[in-house]
Amino acid sequence: MSALTAKIITVGTELLLGDVVDTNSAYLSAGLAEIGINLFHRETVGDNHDRLLAILGEAIESADIVITSGGLGATSDDITKECVAEALGLPLVLDGHSLEKIKSYYLRRGTEMTDNNIKQAYIPLGAVVFDNDYGTAPVLAVKTKKGAVIMLPGPPRELCPMFDEKIKPWIAENFSDSVILSRTLRLYGIGEAAAEEKIRHLMDSCTNPTVAPYAKTGEVVLRLTARGKDKAECNTLIDGLEEKIREILGKYIYGTDISGLEEALLGLLKEKGLKVAFAESCTGGLAAKRLTDLRGASSVLGMSVVTYSNEAKMKLLGVKKETLDTHGAISPKCALEMAEGLFELSGADICISVTGVAGPDPDEGKEIGTVFIGVKSKKASRAIPLNLSRGSKERSYIRELAVNAIFCEALREQRQF
Amino acid sequence: MSALTAKIITVGTELLLGDVVDTNSAYLSAGLAEIGINLFHRETVGDNHDRLLAILGEAIESADIVITSGGLGATSDDITKECVAEALGLPLVLDGHSLEKIKSYYLRRGTEMTDNNIKQAYIPLGAVVFDNDYGTAPVLAVKTKKGAVIMLPGPPRELCPMFDEKIKPWIAENFSDSVILSRTLRLYGIGEAAAEEKIRHLMDSCTNPTVAPYAKTGEVVLRLTARGKDKAECNTLIDGLEEKIREILGKYIYGTDISGLEEALLGLLKEKGLKVAFAESCTGGLAAKRLTDLRGASSVLGMSVVTYSNEAKMKLLGVKKETLDTHGAISPKCALEMAEGLFELSGADICISVTGVAGPDPDEGKEIGTVFIGVKSKKASRAIPLNLSRGSKERSYIRELAVNAIFCEALREQRQF
Repeated sequence: MSALTAKIITVGTELLLGDVVDTNSAYLSAGLAEIGINLFHRETVGDNHDRLLAILGEAIESADIVITSGGLGATSDDITKECVAEALGLPLVLDGHSLEKIKSYYLRRGTEMTDNNIKQAYIPLGAVVFDNDYGTAPVLAVKTKKGAVIMLPGPPRELCPMFDEKIKPWIAENFSDSVILSRTLRLYGIGEAAAEEKIRHLMDSCTNPTVAPYAKTGEVVLRLTARGKDKAECNTLIDGLEEKIREILGKYIYGTDISGLEEALLGLLKEKGLKVAFAESCTGGLAAKRLTDLRGASSVLGMSVVTYSNEAKMKLLGVKKETLDTHGAISPKCALEMAEGLFELSGADICISVTGVAGPDPDEGKEIGTVFIGVKSKKASRAIPLNLSRGSKERSYIRELAVNAIFCEALREQRQF
Repeated sequence: MSALTAKIITVGTELLLGDVVDTNSAYLSAGLAEIGINLFHRETVGDNHDRLLAILGEAIESADIVITSGGLGATSDDITKECVAEALGLPLVLDGHSLEKIKSYYLRRGTEMTDNNIKQAYIPLGAVVFDNDYGTAPVLAVKTKKGAVIMLPGPPRELCPMFDEKIKPWIAENFSDSVILSRTLRLYGIGEAAAEEKIRHLMDSCTNPTVAPYAKTGEVVLRLTARGKDKAECNTLIDGLEEKIREILGKYIYGTDISGLEEALLGLLKEKGLKVAFAESCTGGLAAKRLTDLRGASSVLGMSVVTYSNEAKMKLLGVKKETLDTHGAISPKCALEMAEGLFELSGADICISVTGVAGPDPDEGKEIGTVFIGVKSKKASRAIPLNLSRGSKERSYIRELAVNAIFCEALREQRQF
């Protein structure tokens, strides 16, 4: 079997003006890679009939699967569907089912459907309609001589779940005689280059399954991918490779097929029936925010505090004035007192504090990236000094790294990795 | 004068695998729009000689300014410069100045320069070399019949400053006899479609300056753009248009040329010398996080709390058990008691609380998107009910909208908009 080729076309003048970063392209690209489809080329074009038509025509000629994002809305500058129909020589016809879906969407919202919205119920003749559970634009696929043209809406909150839930299975079912499976291993405490060096021989020698590293903020992710006749075969291939990798990098691996440190922490705390709390200075609520991004966070987090000022550190956490006067707020002693005070206040099993310099300016004579983490639990009471400025001195970067360290210390309270 | 046209080509297999989101394209797009260059098309291609050469050839034919990003590194899969030279029929020659720069870069770092790095000192014959202050790859421009091909390195920390500091002025100096200026107005409390309807006549009739709306999460942004012989002329044109827009939409406009509600709030509180504090339930720290994303937040925020559990609401904020038993945590009464308790605890001038259902499941029998905001200041004591589920029931979306509402209420404590 030879792999299918694909082309992605993202549509929207707002993209060409730079008002919006095109995250859809990366999302679709990664998804295509996962199901073993080769992507050679991506294009972005504005809401312009002639240019979109030309690009679509060329794409339909050269690629098996053409995926568009955007231009399915109700206004007159949404023209993707119209151009696809024109490129394929198909008329647009009213789809009764889609019209009913759109009507009921507006009924639920309690707002009036306008004539404009009827436009969204027109489809190229013969198109497969996927009900969009996340918005009003139906997701459409039209089979072509070589493969298919698939039209997805532009908003990522619609595109991402529709692509995962409806389109990937549809492509696999219709165009593939093999299965692709990926597994990701997440590493903390080692850089991308160092990780790559250690498994370079596996990267170079393995073709099925394969392993590829990529860097996330302060983390490394290894993606293991196998192609086989079914999932079981893929899993066996991946298991073998994972074992080899764990022999080399096992101590850095903290999770498999999860979204990040916060998910590892949430899972562990749920399993153990424990609660965590944070006392954040330089991260300003980011740790609590990242943990509560996840559903079910309420079972492991009851309270968390942001103590940005010295007054707040004293009042809420009982940090001693003497500590602040003698050592400063950016000190191991302050971090420890914050964690200890939080342990009293919150009653949580694991209390983590953070104080440091996120920038853009140095503070208390300490450099950007100087950060102290405090840990207080029944068995532990410690402060950890960190220097987080090696990659970048950017404020948001330092804050993300500091929160990674918070989650890592919370994890280490309960298990080795 | 007719506007120049441009094409952006981002190069890198990691982009096509979806390992990296292409932020360079948006950055370059916005920068080109600012200097009045029309961008019709962007493409992304892997590290593949034949495909890159074909795309470059087509781009040089069709656009005045071609900008590439990536593929200027020292390894053998970096081929952008080689392909540009080939497309233009130019030999690559060793540039002594660039070689010296690269040598001294490695000397400063105290590491050995390898033979590979010499590759980076070769340039297409006649190319303009811009010293790269942020890395080793020289930034290059080659003049063509229609305009120029400009080659920038892929890492955003090199591309962004080099584009702003060296390339934009070079394009303006060599190819432009006019200036473009943009101003953004940010609106809250009105949808994109409704805003568009109200200023449709201005959008349709104005060609210089122009106005275009786009939607951010729960907000609308209007971009006003003018072309003129200098900044003063542009500003005069934009002032006139802004006045017309303010007559129609003034009450929704909360800021000009700022990044969002948090920046408006930070500016206002600084100006008035006031402090704010948040008591967050369903938003889990996102309000504090967004405000402290901004530098200088410490002057307006001393303390903030996340009270996720009922116990935390009672213990930290003094919410009454009776209120929770009778009305539930997701109620106007609880929101108000949270804000009042925070006012006592924090000593901040404006205290805002939030409690509600972010999902993914309903809670206390209330639907996802049911949110109550509490406000307590010297002059105010009120609770505001919100229904935020109209656009999407996605957890992160509801949380962002709830924080927008928090910032909006905090702003409204001090001024009308």
